[in-house]
Amino acid sequence: MTKSNEKKTSGHSYPFLTFFIVTIVITFTVTWYVHKRLMIPPKMPKLDKNEWWGPVPQHIDPDESIQPFRIEFSDVMINDLRERLLHRRASPPPLEGVGFTYGFNSNFLTRVLDYWKNEYDFKGREEYLNKYNHYKTNIQGLDIHFMHILPKKKVDGDDVKTVPLLLLHGWPGSICEFYELIPKLMDVQPEDKFAFELVVPSLPGFGFSESAAVPGLGPAQMAVIMHKLMQRLNYRVYCIQGGDLGHTVGSIMATLYPRHVMGFHTNFPALVFNPLASIYVIFGSYWPSLTVNPEEESRMYPYMDYVTRTLEESGYMHIQATKPDTVGIALSDSPAGLAAYILEKFSTWTNPEHKRASDGNLLGKFSMAHLLDNIMVYWVTNSITTSMRVYAETINSKRITIDFDSIPTLVPTWGIKFKHELVYHPDYVLRLKYKKYLHSTLVEDGGHFAAMENPDIMAVDIKSAVKTFLQYRSPIISKRPPTAAETQPSTVYDFTVLDIQGREVKLDKYRGNVLIIVNVASECGLTETNYKEFNQLHEKYYERGLRILAFPCNQFGGQEPGGAKEILTFIKKNDLKLDFFEKVEVNGEKTHPLWKFLKQAQGGSFGDFIKWNFSKFIVDRNGVPVERFGPNVNPLELESNLQKYL
Amino acid sequence: MTKSNEKKTSGHSYPFLTFFIVTIVITFTVTWYVHKRLMIPPKMPKLDKNEWWGPVPQHIDPDESIQPFRIEFSDVMINDLRERLLHRRASPPPLEGVGFTYGFNSNFLTRVLDYWKNEYDFKGREEYLNKYNHYKTNIQGLDIHFMHILPKKKVDGDDVKTVPLLLLHGWPGSICEFYELIPKLMDVQPEDKFAFELVVPSLPGFGFSESAAVPGLGPAQMAVIMHKLMQRLNYRVYCIQGGDLGHTVGSIMATLYPRHVMGFHTNFPALVFNPLASIYVIFGSYWPSLTVNPEEESRMYPYMDYVTRTLEESGYMHIQATKPDTVGIALSDSPAGLAAYILEKFSTWTNPEHKRASDGNLLGKFSMAHLLDNIMVYWVTNSITTSMRVYAETINSKRITIDFDSIPTLVPTWGIKFKHELVYHPDYVLRLKYKKYLHSTLVEDGGHFAAMENPDIMAVDIKSAVKTFLQYRSPIISKRPPTAAETQPSTVYDFTVLDIQGREVKLDKYRGNVLIIVNVASECGLTETNYKEFNQLHEKYYERGLRILAFPCNQFGGQEPGGAKEILTFIKKNDLKLDFFEKVEVNGEKTHPLWKFLKQAQGGSFGDFIKWNFSKFIVDRNGVPVERFGPNVNPLELESNLQKYL
Repeated sequence: MTKSNEKKTSGHSYPFLTFFIVTIVITFTVTWYVHKRLMIPPKMPKLDKNEWWGPVPQHIDPDESIQPFRIEFSDVMINDLRERLLHRRASPPPLEGVGFTYGFNSNFLTRVLDYWKNEYDFKGREEYLNKYNHYKTNIQGLDIHFMHILPKKKVDGDDVKTVPLLLLHGWPGSICEFYELIPKLMDVQPEDKFAFELVVPSLPGFGFSESAAVPGLGPAQMAVIMHKLMQRLNYRVYCIQGGDLGHTVGSIMATLYPRHVMGFHTNFPALVFNPLASIYVIFGSYWPSLTVNPEEESRMYPYMDYVTRTLEESGYMHIQATKPDTVGIALSDSPAGLAAYILEKFSTWTNPEHKRASDGNLLGKFSMAHLLDNIMVYWVTNSITTSMRVYAETINSKRITIDFDSIPTLVPTWGIKFKHELVYHPDYVLRLKYKKYLHSTLVEDGGHFAAMENPDIMAVDIKSAVKTFLQYRSPIISKRPPTAAETQPSTVYDFTVLDIQGREVKLDKYRGNVLIIVNVASECGLTETNYKEFNQLHEKYYERGLRILAFPCNQFGGQEPGGAKEILTFIKKNDLKLDFFEKVEVNGEKTHPLWKFLKQAQGGSFGDFIKWNFSKFIVDRNGVPVERFGPNVNPLELESNLQKYL
Repeated sequence: MTKSNEKKTSGHSYPFLTFFIVTIVITFTVTWYVHKRLMIPPKMPKLDKNEWWGPVPQHIDPDESIQPFRIEFSDVMINDLRERLLHRRASPPPLEGVGFTYGFNSNFLTRVLDYWKNEYDFKGREEYLNKYNHYKTNIQGLDIHFMHILPKKKVDGDDVKTVPLLLLHGWPGSICEFYELIPKLMDVQPEDKFAFELVVPSLPGFGFSESAAVPGLGPAQMAVIMHKLMQRLNYRVYCIQGGDLGHTVGSIMATLYPRHVMGFHTNFPALVFNPLASIYVIFGSYWPSLTVNPEEESRMYPYMDYVTRTLEESGYMHIQATKPDTVGIALSDSPAGLAAYILEKFSTWTNPEHKRASDGNLLGKFSMAHLLDNIMVYWVTNSITTSMRVYAETINSKRITIDFDSIPTLVPTWGIKFKHELVYHPDYVLRLKYKKYLHSTLVEDGGHFAAMENPDIMAVDIKSAVKTFLQYRSPIISKRPPTAAETQPSTVYDFTVLDIQGREVKLDKYRGNVLIIVNVASECGLTETNYKEFNQLHEKYYERGLRILAFPCNQFGGQEPGGAKEILTFIKKNDLKLDFFEKVEVNGEKTHPLWKFLKQAQGGSFGDFIKWNFSKFIVDRNGVPVERFGPNVNPLELESNLQKYL
């Protein structure tokens, strides 16, 4: 349009033109602004990767060792818990016919709590939870707990690759989410070209991992800690699987450490905090068939149903993002309250229809024991408050975690979408962030707690994903000396001890023998009988493979006061046939590692500690401690037992 | 623009014109739609005013009587509570330096709980809470509790009007909110032209009022019940004061019953659920100085601060609107949890700055005893769960309560705006609903719990409001026979009894006398001495005003078996000077009202019940029972006591 034209169209037309131009300018400005705000990703947040989360003052020389750990359900804790359940003050009955629509149905809760009090097998479940190897290691001031699960046989070779996989739980979950999934992942088939080494941590503030002493430890900061854990285990390049909070942390790790994360598998494929994602979803609602496949439409639309469900299910998030400590006080004090608070999610997030049922259909998908295992992790560690704080550290003015949902990553990503997951995003939305979003597996059932509800489907899907990830990149495991976690003993052959003359003896040399391992003393009332009968056993069974390993010990009545020289004299004088080793401690802080192992493997009556001189362990031909006897059982009385193994 | 013009401007101009017309049409349509949706108030919801909220099946012939009620802190409850506080499992310590920003500071909580356990004077506070008269009456299936507070002297007359005023508490408050305000309201000054009769109920599901057994009892349904309560007390036209939930209920009452509500005083003047109100506030944020007075601007703007605070403080609402029963289970079981959950609000809602303090500045505004009184109301009645359900009944798909915020009312309305109230709306917004919004009192301090925090300011403001309401309308109190509540006795003169010959005797006739009231029997071992000495007392003190009132009673050893005739014969035969009345029961369900009153006024040792024949009460010249003596105290032994009153 030229100047002369403008003049011609003066009069009536001028205002229209002005209006049009103004409209264009405004539209352009708004679009430009929105585009700038939404399409240009935020800068990568700067995270202090050495931030100290433990109590102040910071240790100057932090202990980075990896220590074995065992979950304990002590009798004191069990009695206290049962007492609380017995004396709980019930809340009023639910309104008539409401099922779970006003929250956990308090009538049904009585059944759950009765089971917990009377039927839940505390000691059996403690064993079950300890079936995998547990460890702790300190990172940035916090003792971080994790399970480390290695293949039974070493598999790394030309054909089969070892793939480290980090499994990240969510809220209100824990390591318990993965107990059924783990054996299925570890089950290596001949056609598999890889085998997993699993790392299953408790996120900081959850369960057996310590919680921060100072504010600010959100998912982004957890991502830093989790990466450090993988580094400490020598996994340089590894895979991640996560859902819920585990998804958030895993997604941030993929964004922060693309050189280290070779693939990210998520069962919560959603960009909750990405504003553009929300806009796409809202606009899509005007023409669903254009934006999602018909079979997926019902997961997202009608949009108002989706919004309603989100509002209905996000009250916990709202209160935990603002006042976690307030709710935490009640949940720390009341096991009934804790169970209701957590189990409500296992009902309603598994399928929204479960709300209509008076029992929340809770036991349709999960066993009471498994559900309570998870509650126990929160109860025993009193960690519900600290676990809830992560919401306050997410949805705050710092926005760090939130911004990560808009920062792209090139890490290959694979999602599995269960029908009743709380959030659904179509793949084109997910690609706003995951630039290498490879695949979505659609499952026409299932809900939020995927690993627990559908371990079979999850195992198959994770393996498929990893197979694909391997086409892009290989895992890297450093070849440094193996860490303590990798050398956790499984038989006595894993130990090297000193003999009575101070020479190193690898117990591996006894491979194939049946062993008696015994703590001895020269001045005990039991000494004479024991040594005499041990000599007899030696004579009778040496050829069939029996070896008797004697560890002098001065911890009982001070009855082995002498040094190696005195003991050697005593041995010679009495012509003892046993193999003698260094003098050790068998109880207390300085307990010799072999004895620690023996006691762990074969616990004693009234506590695992060694009661007196001449406590005896039988170890079978595979190096496994199989029986234990007290000082009052004389060596010859062991004959019938020994014959089982010889 | 004519057709010929259009033709002339064809070519380049056409598209602009079309664009313009389309814009106009769209703008018009959108405006029309928005206008229709927002400006045209919703229809008045239809409420079933006889809806049955109690357990099913419904009583056919409901009991509408009004029964006196007493708050009890039983020893069993106190011991159980102390036990729970002693054995509570504390939640982990707060993060360093966070004050109340992550919710209730658990370090400070220890102090609160120690006070509760060791220093809170349970029996003294029980007395304090019973200082006003309590009642219960059944409405629509629910026992509704209320306090009914009448002026000491009857005031209705030409000069001074009696104004019934309904005081409505909020969540997490109770009748305790008003204990300091009540005496200030009841303090009638000579210049006052009115005196209050106060009705202070517990809302259904709160404290001592029963909770619904079926879903649906929200604020609108509470409004129906509250109006029925006022009707049952014969208050045809009355005033309302409320804050928080009490505001919501009161506002609905003003909307539903404009012929009955003569004025509405609110300390929560806000249209929380009115969409137009939100739009005005949002648009106002672009030019605050145009929409609010400068001194009020900081209460509302910057708008994002206001939104942030609202989000921070509404987590409880979100969870209570969706899963009240889940949280309720923990809060019912844990007094520590309950205290933290409620007291957090008393800290942060009083002033948002209190969040920074490690003690939430809780004791700067309230006394520990008062705060715990309110907690006790929730604990003793185990009503936290049912109280929270009102949010689920408000914010649900039925929208009844929500719609009321857009339905105008002509009831004169008066607001008081405390500086730190959670919501602020300028008067022009409030007038969207309150068409006769008379006045806003601005207070440059104070928060959400106005009656408790600032009883003086509230009392003055309520009186000013009521003075103004009276210019529009007068209260109406039905002149039907007074209800039981209105005739709650304060002296023996309030009773009418039958004498031994069956004639009505108003005890008012003894006004100015000193009385001995005694239960008598003709065949008791004590009969002879007592009657003889009563006759002596009568002779000696009759002129100084002593009267002896004898009530035959057959409840002790069956020693007064005869009827009136036999008793009269006995009286004559023994020449007894006492005033004899009808034969009554003094213990048990059929206890004569006078004796119930005597026993309440003067409790006995080891229980209030009458122990045997010839129990004696001395009543002073004002009709007040002042002393009580057992059967073993002979009449002449009373002389010195009597002389105090004669």
